[in-house]
Amino acid sequence: MTDHVYRLIEVVGSSETSIEDAIQSAVTKASATIRHIRWFEVIETRGQVENGKVHYYQVTLKIGFSIEDEHVHLQP
Amino acid sequence: MTDHVYRLIEVVGSSETSIEDAIQSAVTKASATIRHIRWFEVIETRGQVENGKVHYYQVTLKIGFSIEDEHVHLQP
Amino acid sequence: MTDHVYRLIEVVGSSETSIEDAIQSAVTKASATIRHIRWFEVIETRGQVENGKVHYYQVTLKIGFSIEDEHVHLQP
Amino acid sequence: MTDHVYRLIEVVGSSETSIEDAIQSAVTKASATIRHIRWFEVIETRGQVENGKVHYYQVTLKIGFSIEDEHVHLQP
Amino acid sequence: MTDHVYRLIEVVGSSETSIEDAIQSAVTKASATIRHIRWFEVIETRGQVENGKVHYYQVTLKIGFSIEDEHVHLQP
Amino acid sequence: MTDHVYRLIEVVGSSETSIEDAIQSAVTKASATIRHIRWFEVIETRGQVENGKVHYYQVTLKIGFSIEDEHVHLQP
Amino acid sequence: MTDHVYRLIEVVGSSETSIEDAIQSAVTKASATIRHIRWFEVIETRGQVENGKVHYYQVTLKIGFSIEDEHVHLQP
Amino acid sequence: MTDHVYRLIEVVGSSETSIEDAIQSAVTKASATIRHIRWFEVIETRGQVENGKVHYYQVTLKIGFSIEDEHVHLQP
Amino acid sequence: MTDHVYRLIEVVGSSETSIEDAIQSAVTKASATIRHIRWFEVIETRGQVENGKVHYYQVTLKIGFSIEDEHVHLQP
Amino acid sequence: MTDHVYRLIEVVGSSETSIEDAIQSAVTKASATIRHIRWFEVIETRGQVENGKVHYYQVTLKIGFSIEDEHVHLQP
Amino acid sequence: MTDHVYRLIEVVGSSETSIEDAIQSAVTKASATIRHIRWFEVIETRGQVENGKVHYYQVTLKIGFSIEDEHVHLQP
Amino acid sequence: MTDHVYRLIEVVGSSETSIEDAIQSAVTKASATIRHIRWFEVIETRGQVENGKVHYYQVTLKIGFSIEDEHVHLQP
Repeated sequence: MTDHVYRLIEVVGSSETSIEDAIQSAVTKASATIRHIRWFEVIETRGQVENGKVHYYQVTLKIGFSIEDEHVHLQP
Repeated sequence: MTDHVYRLIEVVGSSETSIEDAIQSAVTKASATIRHIRWFEVIETRGQVENGKVHYYQVTLKIGFSIEDEHVHLQP
Repeated sequence: MTDHVYRLIEVVGSSETSIEDAIQSAVTKASATIRHIRWFEVIETRGQVENGKVHYYQVTLKIGFSIEDEHVHLQP
Repeated sequence: MTDHVYRLIEVVGSSETSIEDAIQSAVTKASATIRHIRWFEVIETRGQVENGKVHYYQVTLKIGFSIEDEHVHLQP
Repeated sequence: MTDHVYRLIEVVGSSETSIEDAIQSAVTKASATIRHIRWFEVIETRGQVENGKVHYYQVTLKIGFSIEDEHVHLQP
Repeated sequence: MTDHVYRLIEVVGSSETSIEDAIQSAVTKASATIRHIRWFEVIETRGQVENGKVHYYQVTLKIGFSIEDEHVHLQP
Repeated sequence: MTDHVYRLIEVVGSSETSIEDAIQSAVTKASATIRHIRWFEVIETRGQVENGKVHYYQVTLKIGFSIEDEHVHLQP
Repeated sequence: MTDHVYRLIEVVGSSETSIEDAIQSAVTKASATIRHIRWFEVIETRGQVENGKVHYYQVTLKIGFSIEDEHVHLQP
Repeated sequence: MTDHVYRLIEVVGSSETSIEDAIQSAVTKASATIRHIRWFEVIETRGQVENGKVHYYQVTLKIGFSIEDEHVHLQP
Repeated sequence: MTDHVYRLIEVVGSSETSIEDAIQSAVTKASATIRHIRWFEVIETRGQVENGKVHYYQVTLKIGFSIEDEHVHLQP
Repeated sequence: MTDHVYRLIEVVGSSETSIEDAIQSAVTKASATIRHIRWFEVIETRGQVENGKVHYYQVTLKIGFSIEDEHVHLQP
Repeated sequence: MTDHVYRLIEVVGSSETSIEDAIQSAVTKASATIRHIRWFEVIETRGQVENGKVHYYQVTLKIGFSIEDEHVHLQP
């Protein structure tokens, strides 16, 4: 495992429901094209307000994924 | 839209239920006197503990609002 | 001068032209209701893009002003 | 209350359910051996992903507790 | 207490005597118009020098106050 | 709009003329291959000096773009 | 001296009098159970306010101590 | 050289041997698909421990590369 | 694995030889009394100089360990 | 080139005109006594305000210069 | 005043008495060779402990001084 | 020892071999003109890459030295 190389990309997910749902939304979208997502880190939590209500949450994540057996994916 | 000016104020909301509820609590209170709240950013998440249970969450937000058509509101 | 007290507020100005113009835009708006603005600090520089062009700059400032002889202005 | 001394320790809790549950998980474990936990601060929010789903959240907390009447507990 | 909302404002106090005196100076001035100040956090400590002597200290504080029963005060 | 997902990439633009021109230079280059660029944030401003003159500015940006209707673009 | 190992713990001291007294208060309490305290670093300075007066200062410290000849003390 | 545009990507390399080897490991992997890598910056140094030994180092890097003559590579 | 709780402690290791050796020195000392160390993060790298030579390196680490099956170890 | 040593000094330049001009002002002054200035990094951007107008910009820079062939210049 | 250039240097002062005295100690020493010191900023506050007592405070300052009419002083 | 004053300067060393060698390179160069260097702190670790190999490491250090008995050296 010691020769693994990972890449980190930064993604913003959003949700009207919760912070957790905004995180999952970003992970789901990223998973559509990246196979080996392993972890995320929350970088920033923001949100939009309308008429005194939180309309939706926006969570910026770093998403880490293995590029071990899919080096074609490193192409930035 | 390019000549908009926004102001940011810092507010701490709390809730026994969730982080999202503490955010809404702060936004609700701020909306009582500020008309054009547009967004928030989470600055810090803390909480109080009693008898080994999270008693309530305290979330510090920056709240951004337009001062376009209500410049009397800029009065600090 | 040693008993001066200053207050800092956070404001976002914008401009289609330049970063300097976005700063002046925020200072001008703030000056409409605050008399003794003395200095600013740039906190963040962002911008909106449309069709591959910077549409406008958004600069977040802290603006410092004296509350010496206008203590009614401290009212947050 | 002015001669109180508190200690802060750093703990990582995890949960498959939510960020709030991961926080409570860390507080519960810490409470098994520390009596006077008073507050926490969230330092970092991360998580593990499996097959495009958030598998669990990992929240790093600072936990503050009084060492007033239990100074034997300061033993690091 | 769990539905309390606090506001944070940023103030700079100064004193020829000490850092503590500069803090009190800012708190005193803020107290002239804000009723429920609860706590402060030191953000920055600076000072002016004249002829090789510290002429005065300037301490930037965040001051937190309850807006529970005085919501008219939230007016920014 | 609440189910939008954005991606952030980090780019360095340069210009002999101004900071604004270095920002536009990075945005222009990025726009050649990314369709839905929405915003940027300045991360760092540096520059090269030759013979006591600023030779060119180098501005590091985070550029945010929608991956809504072009999910093939998430390919890192 | 090159094979020394130190440990850092985080402690909050308080005092009605001064920042220095709050620091000493934390060091005194920590010294009751830790023998080889060598240094401290101030992490944060806060305080409580009552009726417009600073009631007490709260200073968060990292305290460093040698675990050379008392390795039983590393027990966290 | 003033119209160069660079891109920065974030990569984690690992090695059982040394921090330098973990850096080279990340650079080697990235070089398999990116032609014009110019520099790196160390963002974070971590490692895994097994049985009281450092098992391997994990170094997070930002890697900068020119996109001058290979703009197809900007495709994120 | 999702109900694991970890604790982080901060330790300074030193070595005349290398940064890696200073890290191992801290991990070795910590392992004498903590069973389940899993990872470390480098917080700070410093060193002492004598006669123009680096005499030894000092590396501050956060060390993470599982408190799953040894909750008596949480005793701070 | 691999045995080059650079020094960084911190300088504040000012200008009534623009941020770029304040940077050049600091570089020009530094160049009067330092021969091999190579690059700068913007650390902070502030400014003074008079009567609601930005009176001048103040930009704090780190300026890097080679001390290769002028080691007498390292004298701090 | 808009064409002033300042330089910032970093100095550590110490005192057995107080933080303020450690600051003055650094300013006094710096004033022995620098004429136009104008301000300081506290960067870090540390201290040494002996036998459970703060032995002395160590305060790291940035000291700013004008190089307007003494450009020979810029010589780093 | 309590009236010691130290100065900190920022230097970048480089080496084709290792991070430790880059540190020593900066310390060696600084020692050519500064007598009482005591410690260093690593501020940043970067490097140049050529043909997919780390060509050299560049380490930015703060170097601290006593100005006790050589106050002529404070001349910035």
